[in-house]
Amino acid sequence: MLILVTNDDGVYSPGLRALADAMATLGDAVIVAPDRNRSAVGHALTLEQPLRAEEIEPGIFAVDGTPTDCVNLGIHGLMMQRPDLVVSGINSGSNMGDDITYSGTVSAALEASLMGIPAIAVSLNAKIFSEADLLTTTRFIIVLAQQVVKKGLPADTFLNVNVPSGPCHGVKVTRQGKRRYGQAVIVNEDPRGRKYYWIGGSSVGFEDIPGTDCCAVSRGFISVTPLHTNLTSDSFCETLKNWPVLCDGGVL
Amino acid sequence: MLILVTNDDGVYSPGLRALADAMATLGDAVIVAPDRNRSAVGHALTLEQPLRAEEIEPGIFAVDGTPTDCVNLGIHGLMMQRPDLVVSGINSGSNMGDDITYSGTVSAALEASLMGIPAIAVSLNAKIFSEADLLTTTRFIIVLAQQVVKKGLPADTFLNVNVPSGPCHGVKVTRQGKRRYGQAVIVNEDPRGRKYYWIGGSSVGFEDIPGTDCCAVSRGFISVTPLHTNLTSDSFCETLKNWPVLCDGGVL
Repeated sequence: MLILVTNDDGVYSPGLRALADAMATLGDAVIVAPDRNRSAVGHALTLEQPLRAEEIEPGIFAVDGTPTDCVNLGIHGLMMQRPDLVVSGINSGSNMGDDITYSGTVSAALEASLMGIPAIAVSLNAKIFSEADLLTTTRFIIVLAQQVVKKGLPADTFLNVNVPSGPCHGVKVTRQGKRRYGQAVIVNEDPRGRKYYWIGGSSVGFEDIPGTDCCAVSRGFISVTPLHTNLTSDSFCETLKNWPVLCDGGVL
Repeated sequence: MLILVTNDDGVYSPGLRALADAMATLGDAVIVAPDRNRSAVGHALTLEQPLRAEEIEPGIFAVDGTPTDCVNLGIHGLMMQRPDLVVSGINSGSNMGDDITYSGTVSAALEASLMGIPAIAVSLNAKIFSEADLLTTTRFIIVLAQQVVKKGLPADTFLNVNVPSGPCHGVKVTRQGKRRYGQAVIVNEDPRGRKYYWIGGSSVGFEDIPGTDCCAVSRGFISVTPLHTNLTSDSFCETLKNWPVLCDGGVL
Protein backbone atom coordinates (compact mmCIF):
# COMPACT_ATOMS: atom_id res chain seq x y z
CA MET A 1 0.00 0.00 0.00
CA LEU A 2 1.25 3.46 -0.92
CA ILE A 3 0.31 6.42 1.27
CA LEU A 4 0.88 10.12 0.62
CA VAL A 5 1.33 12.11 3.83
CA THR A 6 1.02 15.90 3.85
CA ASN A 7 0.01 18.77 6.13
CA ASP A 8 -0.18 22.56 6.33
CA ASP A 9 2.15 23.13 9.30
CA GLY A 10 5.16 22.41 7.09
CA VAL A 11 7.54 19.55 6.44
CA TYR A 12 9.43 19.97 9.72
CA SER A 13 6.35 19.71 11.91
CA PRO A 14 6.51 16.87 14.49
CA GLY A 15 2.87 16.01 13.84
CA LEU A 16 3.66 15.23 10.21
CA ARG A 17 6.54 12.94 11.11
CA ALA A 18 4.46 11.11 13.71
CA LEU A 19 1.70 10.57 11.15
CA ALA A 20 4.17 9.32 8.54
CA ASP A 21 5.69 6.90 11.07
CA ALA A 22 2.22 5.59 11.86
CA MET A 23 1.38 5.15 8.18
CA ALA A 24 4.69 3.36 7.61
CA THR A 25 3.28 0.50 9.72
CA LEU A 26 0.65 0.01 6.98
CA GLY A 27 2.74 0.43 3.83
CA ASP A 28 5.08 2.82 2.05
CA ALA A 29 4.60 6.37 3.30
CA VAL A 30 5.86 9.26 1.15
CA ILE A 31 5.84 12.79 2.59
CA VAL A 32 5.12 15.72 0.26
CA ALA A 33 4.56 18.80 2.39
CA PRO A 34 4.99 22.60 2.32
CA ASP A 35 8.52 23.81 3.05
CA ARG A 36 7.12 26.08 5.78
CA ASN A 37 3.94 26.75 7.75
CA ARG A 38 1.06 27.34 5.34
CA SER A 39 -1.85 27.32 7.77
CA ALA A 40 -5.15 28.97 6.78
CA VAL A 41 -4.38 28.95 3.06
CA GLY A 42 -7.60 27.06 2.39
CA HIS A 43 -7.79 25.27 -0.93
CA ALA A 44 -5.39 27.69 -2.63
CA LEU A 45 -3.68 26.37 -5.74
CA THR A 46 -0.54 27.93 -7.27
CA LEU A 47 -1.22 28.43 -10.98
CA GLU A 48 0.71 31.58 -11.90
CA GLN A 49 4.18 30.37 -11.00
CA PRO A 50 6.31 27.21 -11.03
CA LEU A 51 6.92 25.13 -7.92
CA ARG A 52 10.07 23.50 -6.58
CA ALA A 53 10.24 20.20 -4.74
CA GLU A 54 13.34 19.24 -2.78
CA GLU A 55 13.85 15.71 -1.49
CA ILE A 56 15.27 16.64 1.90
CA GLU A 57 15.46 13.00 3.04
CA PRO A 58 14.64 9.82 1.11
CA GLY A 59 10.88 9.89 0.50
CA ILE A 60 10.40 13.32 2.11
CA PHE A 61 9.73 16.20 -0.28
CA ALA A 62 9.56 19.87 0.71
CA VAL A 63 7.50 21.98 -1.74
CA ASP A 64 7.38 25.78 -1.89
CA GLY A 65 3.61 25.73 -2.28
CA THR A 66 0.32 25.10 -0.54
CA PRO A 67 -0.99 21.78 0.81
CA THR A 68 -3.21 21.53 -2.29
CA ASP A 69 -0.12 22.05 -4.47
CA CYS A 70 1.64 19.28 -2.53
CA VAL A 71 -1.11 16.77 -3.23
CA ASN A 72 -0.99 17.68 -6.92
CA LEU A 73 2.78 17.43 -7.17
CA GLY A 74 2.92 14.27 -5.11
CA ILE A 75 0.39 12.44 -7.22
CA HIS A 76 1.22 13.81 -10.66
CA GLY A 77 4.94 14.52 -10.41
CA LEU A 78 6.84 12.99 -7.52
CA MET A 79 5.37 9.59 -6.68
CA MET A 80 6.02 6.59 -8.88
CA GLN A 81 2.41 5.44 -8.72
CA ARG A 82 -0.95 6.67 -7.56
CA PRO A 83 -1.32 6.41 -3.78
CA ASP A 84 -4.02 4.27 -2.21
CA LEU A 85 -4.61 6.80 0.53
CA VAL A 86 -3.80 10.42 1.36
CA VAL A 87 -3.54 11.51 5.00
CA SER A 88 -3.06 15.12 6.08
CA GLY A 89 -1.84 16.20 9.51
CA ILE A 90 -1.40 15.76 12.39
CA ASN A 91 -2.38 19.41 12.56
CA SER A 92 -1.33 21.45 15.54
CA GLY A 93 -4.75 22.60 16.78
CA SER A 94 -8.21 21.39 15.87
CA ASN A 95 -9.99 21.93 12.54
CA MET A 96 -13.65 21.98 13.47
CA GLY A 97 -16.73 23.99 12.62
CA ASP A 98 -16.31 26.71 9.99
CA ASP A 99 -12.52 26.54 10.45
CA ILE A 100 -12.37 23.65 8.04
CA THR A 101 -13.15 25.97 5.11
CA TYR A 102 -9.88 27.87 5.77
CA SER A 103 -7.81 24.85 6.71
CA GLY A 104 -4.91 23.75 4.54
CA THR A 105 -4.93 20.39 6.34
CA VAL A 106 -8.54 19.71 5.40
CA SER A 107 -8.10 21.16 1.89
CA ALA A 108 -5.30 18.70 1.14
CA ALA A 109 -7.68 15.84 1.91
CA LEU A 110 -10.37 17.53 -0.18
CA GLU A 111 -7.95 17.74 -3.12
CA ALA A 112 -7.19 14.03 -2.90
CA SER A 113 -10.90 13.28 -2.74
CA LEU A 114 -11.48 15.37 -5.89
CA MET A 115 -8.93 13.08 -7.57
CA GLY A 116 -10.83 10.02 -6.43
CA ILE A 117 -8.35 8.96 -3.75
CA PRO A 118 -9.59 8.14 -0.22
CA ALA A 119 -8.39 10.80 2.20
CA ILE A 120 -8.30 11.62 5.89
CA ALA A 121 -7.45 14.93 7.59
CA VAL A 122 -6.24 14.63 11.19
CA SER A 123 -5.93 17.38 13.79
CA LEU A 124 -5.05 17.33 17.46
CA ASN A 125 -6.64 19.88 19.77
CA ALA A 126 -3.35 21.05 21.28
CA LYS A 127 -0.62 23.45 20.21
CA ILE A 128 2.18 21.30 21.63
CA PHE A 129 1.70 17.55 21.53
CA SER A 130 2.23 15.31 24.54
CA GLU A 131 3.46 11.79 23.92
CA ALA A 132 0.18 10.42 25.24
CA ASP A 133 -1.88 12.58 22.86
CA LEU A 134 0.26 11.58 19.91
CA LEU A 135 -0.11 7.92 20.83
CA THR A 136 -3.90 8.20 21.05
CA THR A 137 -3.98 9.92 17.67
CA THR A 138 -1.66 7.62 15.79
CA ARG A 139 -3.25 4.46 17.23
CA PHE A 140 -6.67 5.61 16.10
CA ILE A 141 -5.55 6.77 12.67
CA ILE A 142 -3.86 3.47 11.92
CA VAL A 143 -7.09 1.59 12.60
CA LEU A 144 -9.23 4.13 10.73
CA ALA A 145 -6.91 4.17 7.72
CA GLN A 146 -7.08 0.39 7.52
CA GLN A 147 -10.87 0.52 7.46
CA VAL A 148 -10.92 3.32 4.88
CA VAL A 149 -8.71 1.33 2.54
CA LYS A 150 -10.69 -1.87 3.13
CA LYS A 151 -14.18 -0.42 2.83
CA GLY A 152 -13.52 2.63 0.63
CA LEU A 153 -15.33 5.95 0.86
CA PRO A 154 -18.19 7.19 -1.34
CA ALA A 155 -17.22 9.39 -4.30
CA ASP A 156 -16.32 12.95 -3.31
CA THR A 157 -16.35 12.10 0.40
CA PHE A 158 -13.44 12.26 2.82
CA LEU A 159 -12.98 12.15 6.59
CA ASN A 160 -12.07 14.94 9.00
CA VAL A 161 -10.75 13.68 12.32
CA ASN A 162 -10.20 15.77 15.45
CA VAL A 163 -8.59 14.33 18.54
CA PRO A 164 -8.98 15.85 22.02
CA SER A 165 -5.98 16.54 24.21
CA GLY A 166 -5.89 14.57 27.46
CA PRO A 167 -8.06 11.60 28.42
CA CYS A 168 -9.96 10.17 25.44
CA HIS A 169 -13.37 8.64 26.11
CA GLY A 170 -14.03 7.15 22.67
CA VAL A 171 -15.06 8.10 19.15
CA LYS A 172 -18.10 9.89 17.73
CA VAL A 173 -19.30 10.27 14.15
CA THR A 174 -20.15 13.96 13.99
CA ARG A 175 -21.40 16.85 11.86
CA GLN A 176 -19.48 20.08 11.21
CA GLY A 177 -20.29 22.43 14.09
CA LYS A 178 -20.23 26.18 14.49
CA ARG A 179 -17.61 28.24 16.28
CA ARG A 180 -17.88 31.70 17.80
CA TYR A 181 -15.14 34.26 17.21
CA GLY A 182 -13.80 37.26 19.08
CA GLN A 183 -12.93 40.70 17.70
CA ALA A 184 -12.57 40.13 13.97
CA VAL A 185 -10.15 42.84 12.83
CA ILE A 186 -7.62 44.83 14.86
CA VAL A 187 -6.82 48.32 13.54
CA ASN A 188 -3.50 49.87 14.54
CA GLU A 189 -0.72 52.17 13.34
CA ASP A 190 2.74 51.11 12.19
CA PRO A 191 5.97 52.83 13.39
CA ARG A 192 5.51 55.43 10.62
CA GLY A 193 1.94 56.27 11.59
CA ARG A 194 0.31 54.38 8.72
CA LYS A 195 -2.79 52.41 9.51
CA TYR A 196 -2.76 48.63 9.27
CA TYR A 197 -5.35 45.94 9.80
CA TRP A 198 -4.79 42.54 11.35
CA ILE A 199 -7.34 39.80 11.09
CA GLY A 200 -8.03 38.52 14.58
CA GLY A 201 -11.10 36.48 15.19
CA SER A 202 -9.67 33.85 17.49
CA SER A 203 -12.24 31.31 18.52
CA VAL A 204 -13.86 32.22 21.84
CA GLY A 205 -16.07 29.16 22.01
CA PHE A 206 -18.54 27.14 20.00
CA GLU A 207 -22.24 26.54 19.73
CA ASP A 208 -22.86 23.53 21.94
CA ILE A 209 -24.93 21.54 19.44
CA PRO A 210 -25.05 17.80 20.21
CA GLY A 211 -23.66 15.65 17.44
CA THR A 212 -21.12 18.21 16.22
CA ASP A 213 -17.32 17.98 16.07
CA CYS A 214 -16.87 20.87 18.53
CA CYS A 215 -19.22 19.27 21.04
CA ALA A 216 -17.62 15.80 20.84
CA VAL A 217 -14.02 17.01 21.17
CA SER A 218 -14.87 19.32 24.07
CA ARG A 219 -16.21 16.25 25.91
CA GLY A 220 -13.07 14.22 25.30
CA PHE A 221 -14.17 12.23 22.26
CA ILE A 222 -12.40 11.83 18.94
CA SER A 223 -14.70 13.28 16.25
CA VAL A 224 -14.91 11.80 12.76
CA THR A 225 -16.85 14.01 10.34
CA PRO A 226 -17.51 12.81 6.80
CA LEU A 227 -17.22 15.80 4.46
CA HIS A 228 -18.09 16.06 0.81
CA THR A 229 -16.66 18.12 -1.97
CA ASN A 230 -20.02 19.00 -3.50
CA LEU A 231 -21.32 22.10 -1.73
CA THR A 232 -24.78 22.14 -3.33
CA SER A 233 -27.58 22.87 -0.89
CA ASP A 234 -30.11 20.39 -2.25
CA SER A 235 -32.69 21.43 0.30
CA PHE A 236 -32.70 25.01 -0.98
CA CYS A 237 -32.76 24.09 -4.67
CA GLU A 238 -36.49 23.38 -4.61
CA THR A 239 -37.35 26.65 -2.85
CA LEU A 240 -35.20 28.61 -5.26
CA LYS A 241 -37.00 27.16 -8.26
CA ASN A 242 -40.12 29.01 -7.11
CA TRP A 243 -38.50 32.43 -7.03
CA PRO A 244 -40.00 34.57 -9.82
CA VAL A 245 -36.66 35.30 -11.46
CA LEU A 246 -35.79 31.61 -11.49
CA CYS A 247 -39.12 30.04 -12.45
CA ASP A 248 -39.04 27.30 -15.03
CA GLY A 249 -35.99 28.46 -16.96
CA GLY A 250 -37.92 31.53 -18.07
CA VAL A 251 -36.20 33.69 -20.66
CA LEU A 252 -34.92 36.92 -19.17
CA MET B 1 -29.29 49.41 1.23
CA LEU B 2 -25.54 48.91 1.65
CA ILE B 3 -23.73 46.46 -0.62
CA LEU B 4 -20.13 45.23 -0.39
CA VAL B 5 -18.66 44.38 -3.80
CA THR B 6 -15.51 42.30 -4.09
CA ASN B 7 -13.79 39.82 -6.44
CA ASP B 8 -10.61 37.84 -6.95
CA ASP B 9 -9.47 39.33 -10.26
CA GLY B 10 -8.37 42.49 -8.48
CA VAL B 11 -9.66 46.00 -7.93
CA TYR B 12 -8.88 47.16 -11.48
CA SER B 13 -10.90 44.39 -13.16
CA PRO B 14 -13.66 45.67 -15.49
CA GLY B 15 -16.04 42.97 -14.23
CA LEU B 16 -15.79 44.35 -10.70
CA ARG B 17 -16.58 47.88 -11.80
CA ALA B 18 -19.55 46.71 -13.91
CA LEU B 19 -20.91 44.79 -10.93
CA ALA B 20 -20.47 47.78 -8.62
CA ASP B 21 -22.25 50.05 -11.12
CA ALA B 22 -25.13 47.57 -11.27
CA MET B 23 -25.35 47.38 -7.48
CA ALA B 24 -25.29 51.18 -7.25
CA THR B 25 -28.75 51.15 -8.86
CA LEU B 26 -29.99 49.33 -5.74
CA GLY B 27 -28.19 51.24 -2.99
CA ASP B 28 -24.75 52.27 -1.77
CA ALA B 29 -22.06 50.04 -3.25
CA VAL B 30 -18.63 49.94 -1.58
CA ILE B 31 -15.78 48.09 -3.30
CA VAL B 32 -13.22 46.26 -1.15
CA ALA B 33 -11.10 44.11 -3.45
CA PRO B 34 -7.58 42.67 -3.77
CA ASP B 35 -4.98 45.11 -5.12
CA ARG B 36 -4.07 42.54 -7.82
CA ASN B 37 -5.25 39.28 -9.32
CA ARG B 38 -5.72 36.70 -6.58
CA SER B 39 -7.46 33.95 -8.52
CA ALA B 40 -7.41 30.37 -7.20
CA VAL B 41 -6.50 31.41 -3.65
CA GLY B 42 -9.55 29.55 -2.35
CA HIS B 43 -10.71 30.53 1.12
CA ALA B 44 -7.23 31.62 2.21
CA LEU B 45 -7.13 34.02 5.13
CA THR B 46 -4.08 36.13 6.04
CA LEU B 47 -3.41 35.64 9.74
CA GLU B 48 0.36 35.90 10.10
CA GLN B 49 0.82 39.43 8.80
CA PRO B 50 -0.95 42.80 8.77
CA LEU B 51 -2.94 44.04 5.80
CA ARG B 52 -3.09 47.46 4.15
CA ALA B 53 -6.18 49.03 2.62
CA GLU B 54 -5.85 52.02 0.32
CA GLU B 55 -8.90 54.05 -0.71
CA ILE B 56 -7.92 54.55 -4.35
CA GLU B 57 -11.18 56.36 -5.18
CA PRO B 58 -14.05 57.32 -2.88
CA GLY B 59 -15.67 54.07 -1.75
CA ILE B 60 -13.12 51.86 -3.54
CA PHE B 61 -10.56 50.10 -1.35
CA ALA B 62 -7.58 48.10 -2.61
CA VAL B 63 -6.35 45.51 -0.10
CA ASP B 64 -3.06 43.60 -0.28
CA GLY B 65 -4.79 40.37 0.68
CA THR B 66 -7.14 37.64 -0.47
CA PRO B 67 -10.85 37.98 -1.31
CA THR B 68 -11.64 36.44 2.09
CA ASP B 69 -9.42 39.08 3.72
CA CYS B 70 -11.30 41.78 1.80
CA VAL B 71 -14.68 40.64 3.12
CA ASN B 72 -13.29 40.63 6.65
CA LEU B 73 -11.69 44.06 6.35
CA GLY B 74 -14.71 45.51 4.59
CA ILE B 75 -17.17 44.40 7.20
CA HIS B 76 -15.06 44.76 10.35
CA GLY B 77 -12.75 47.63 9.48
CA LEU B 78 -13.63 49.79 6.49
CA MET B 79 -17.40 50.06 6.19
CA MET B 80 -19.39 52.28 8.52
CA GLN B 81 -22.11 49.68 8.99
CA ARG B 82 -22.77 46.03 8.25
CA PRO B 83 -23.74 45.49 4.59
CA ASP B 84 -27.11 44.04 3.63
CA LEU B 85 -25.57 42.06 0.81
CA VAL B 86 -22.16 40.94 -0.44
CA VAL B 87 -21.62 40.31 -4.16
CA SER B 88 -18.41 38.90 -5.60
CA GLY B 89 -17.43 39.13 -9.28
CA ILE B 90 -18.01 39.49 -12.13
CA ASN B 91 -15.32 36.86 -12.48
CA SER B 92 -13.47 36.52 -15.75
CA GLY B 93 -14.25 32.89 -16.55
CA SER B 94 -16.78 30.53 -15.03
CA ASN B 95 -16.66 29.01 -11.55
CA MET B 96 -18.46 25.71 -11.90
CA GLY B 97 -18.00 22.14 -10.78
CA ASP B 98 -15.05 21.45 -8.51
CA ASP B 99 -13.49 24.78 -9.51
CA ILE B 100 -15.60 26.52 -6.90
CA THR B 101 -13.50 24.99 -4.12
CA TYR B 102 -10.42 26.86 -5.41
CA SER B 103 -12.22 30.04 -6.38
CA GLY B 104 -11.51 33.29 -4.58
CA THR B 105 -14.72 34.72 -6.05
CA VAL B 106 -16.85 31.98 -4.53
CA SER B 107 -14.86 31.98 -1.27
CA ALA B 108 -15.58 35.68 -0.74
CA ALA B 109 -19.31 34.91 -0.88
CA LEU B 110 -18.77 31.94 1.42
CA GLU B 111 -17.02 34.21 3.93
CA ALA B 112 -19.96 36.64 3.93
CA SER B 113 -22.35 33.75 4.40
CA LEU B 114 -20.34 32.51 7.41
CA MET B 115 -20.87 35.99 8.88
CA GLY B 116 -24.61 35.69 8.32
CA ILE B 117 -24.78 38.13 5.39
CA PRO B 118 -26.60 37.13 2.18
CA ALA B 119 -24.09 36.68 -0.61
CA ILE B 120 -23.88 36.04 -4.34
CA ALA B 121 -20.85 35.03 -6.43
CA VAL B 122 -21.08 35.91 -10.14
CA SER B 123 -18.92 34.63 -12.99
CA LEU B 124 -19.12 35.10 -16.72
CA ASN B 125 -17.97 32.27 -18.98
CA ALA B 126 -15.62 34.44 -21.07
CA LYS B 127 -12.11 35.76 -20.62
CA ILE B 128 -12.89 39.11 -22.24
CA PHE B 129 -16.36 40.51 -21.76
CA SER B 130 -18.52 41.79 -24.61
CA GLU B 131 -20.94 44.61 -23.85
CA ALA B 132 -23.86 42.29 -24.57
CA ASP B 133 -22.57 39.66 -22.10
CA LEU B 134 -22.00 42.28 -19.43
CA LEU B 135 -25.51 43.63 -19.95
CA THR B 136 -27.06 40.17 -19.62
CA THR B 137 -25.08 39.57 -16.44
CA THR B 138 -25.75 42.88 -14.72
CA ARG B 139 -29.46 42.88 -15.62
CA PHE B 140 -29.87 39.44 -14.11
CA ILE B 141 -27.82 40.16 -11.00
CA ILE B 142 -29.80 43.30 -10.23
CA VAL B 143 -33.06 41.33 -10.25
CA LEU B 144 -31.56 38.39 -8.32
CA ALA B 145 -29.99 40.68 -5.70
CA GLN B 146 -33.35 42.37 -5.14
CA GLN B 147 -34.98 39.01 -4.53
CA VAL B 148 -32.19 37.83 -2.22
CA VAL B 149 -32.55 40.93 -0.07
CA LYS B 150 -36.35 40.70 -0.08
CA LYS B 151 -36.67 36.97 0.61
CA GLY B 152 -33.38 36.28 2.40
CA LEU B 153 -31.36 33.09 2.18
CA PRO B 154 -31.27 30.20 4.66
CA ALA B 155 -28.48 30.24 7.25
CA ASP B 156 -25.09 29.23 5.81
CA THR B 157 -26.40 29.28 2.24
CA PHE B 158 -25.27 31.54 -0.61
CA LEU B 159 -25.70 31.64 -4.37
CA ASN B 160 -23.20 30.87 -7.12
CA VAL B 161 -24.18 32.34 -10.49
CA ASN B 162 -22.56 31.52 -13.83
CA VAL B 163 -23.52 33.35 -16.99
CA PRO B 164 -22.89 31.98 -20.50
CA SER B 165 -21.22 34.06 -23.17
CA GLY B 166 -23.38 34.80 -26.20
CA PRO B 167 -27.12 34.26 -26.56
CA CYS B 168 -28.80 33.56 -23.21
CA HIS B 169 -31.84 31.26 -23.22
CA GLY B 170 -32.94 31.69 -19.61
CA VAL B 171 -32.07 30.66 -16.07
CA LYS B 172 -31.70 27.27 -14.39
CA VAL B 173 -31.42 26.36 -10.72
CA THR B 174 -28.56 23.86 -10.74
CA ARG B 175 -26.31 21.56 -8.72
CA GLN B 176 -22.50 21.74 -8.65
CA GLY B 177 -21.25 19.65 -11.57
CA LYS B 178 -18.01 17.87 -12.30
CA ARG B 179 -15.25 19.01 -14.65
CA ARG B 180 -12.59 17.00 -16.38
CA TYR B 181 -9.00 18.21 -16.45
CA GLY B 182 -6.04 17.79 -18.77
CA GLN B 183 -2.43 17.00 -17.84
CA ALA B 184 -2.20 17.89 -14.20
CA VAL B 185 1.46 18.81 -13.66
CA ILE B 186 4.06 19.90 -16.22
CA VAL B 187 7.68 19.02 -15.35
CA ASN B 188 10.43 21.09 -16.96
CA GLU B 189 13.91 22.52 -16.40
CA ASP B 190 14.74 26.15 -15.68
CA PRO B 191 17.57 28.03 -17.49
CA ARG B 192 20.04 26.64 -14.94
CA GLY B 193 18.96 23.02 -15.44
CA ARG B 194 17.01 22.76 -12.19
CA LYS B 195 13.72 20.93 -12.33
CA TYR B 196 10.49 22.79 -11.77
CA TYR B 197 6.85 21.77 -11.67
CA TRP B 198 3.91 23.76 -12.99
CA ILE B 199 0.38 22.87 -12.09
CA GLY B 200 -1.59 22.59 -15.32
CA GLY B 201 -4.89 20.85 -15.26
CA SER B 202 -6.87 23.17 -17.49
CA SER B 203 -10.44 22.04 -17.90
CA VAL B 204 -10.88 19.91 -21.00
CA GLY B 205 -14.60 19.42 -20.59
CA PHE B 206 -17.21 18.40 -18.05
CA GLU B 207 -19.42 15.47 -17.19
CA ASP B 208 -22.65 16.20 -19.00
CA ILE B 209 -24.97 15.56 -16.07
CA PRO B 210 -28.41 17.18 -16.48
CA GLY B 211 -29.24 19.67 -13.77
CA THR B 212 -25.64 20.77 -13.18
CA ASP B 213 -24.06 24.21 -13.58
CA CYS B 214 -21.68 22.99 -16.33
CA CYS B 215 -24.55 21.49 -18.31
CA ALA B 216 -26.80 24.57 -18.04
CA VAL B 217 -24.11 27.11 -19.00
CA SER B 218 -22.92 24.99 -21.95
CA ARG B 219 -26.50 25.13 -23.27
CA GLY B 220 -26.72 28.91 -22.97
CA PHE B 221 -28.52 29.17 -19.64
CA ILE B 222 -27.55 31.19 -16.60
CA SER B 223 -26.96 28.74 -13.73
CA VAL B 224 -27.81 29.58 -10.13
CA THR B 225 -26.44 27.03 -7.66
CA PRO B 226 -27.27 27.35 -3.96
CA LEU B 227 -24.18 26.39 -1.96
CA HIS B 228 -23.81 25.82 1.73
CA THR B 229 -20.94 26.33 4.10
CA ASN B 230 -21.50 23.11 6.02
CA LEU B 231 -19.66 20.33 4.20
CA THR B 232 -20.99 17.43 6.28
CA SER B 233 -22.03 14.44 4.23
CA ASP B 234 -25.18 13.54 6.16
CA SER B 235 -25.84 10.57 3.94
CA PHE B 236 -22.53 8.94 4.88
CA CYS B 237 -22.82 9.66 8.61
CA GLU B 238 -25.19 6.74 9.17
CA THR B 239 -22.99 4.27 7.27
CA LEU B 240 -19.93 5.41 9.15
CA LYS B 241 -21.59 4.81 12.50
CA ASN B 242 -21.61 1.09 11.67
CA TRP B 243 -17.88 0.86 11.03
CA PRO B 244 -16.31 -1.24 13.82
CA VAL B 245 -13.86 1.44 14.90
CA LEU B 246 -16.65 4.00 15.11
CA CYS B 247 -19.44 1.95 16.69
CA ASP B 248 -21.38 3.57 19.46
CA GLY B 249 -18.68 5.83 20.82
CA GLY B 250 -16.75 2.76 22.00
CA VAL B 251 -13.67 3.43 24.08
CA LEU B 252 -10.49 2.84 22.09
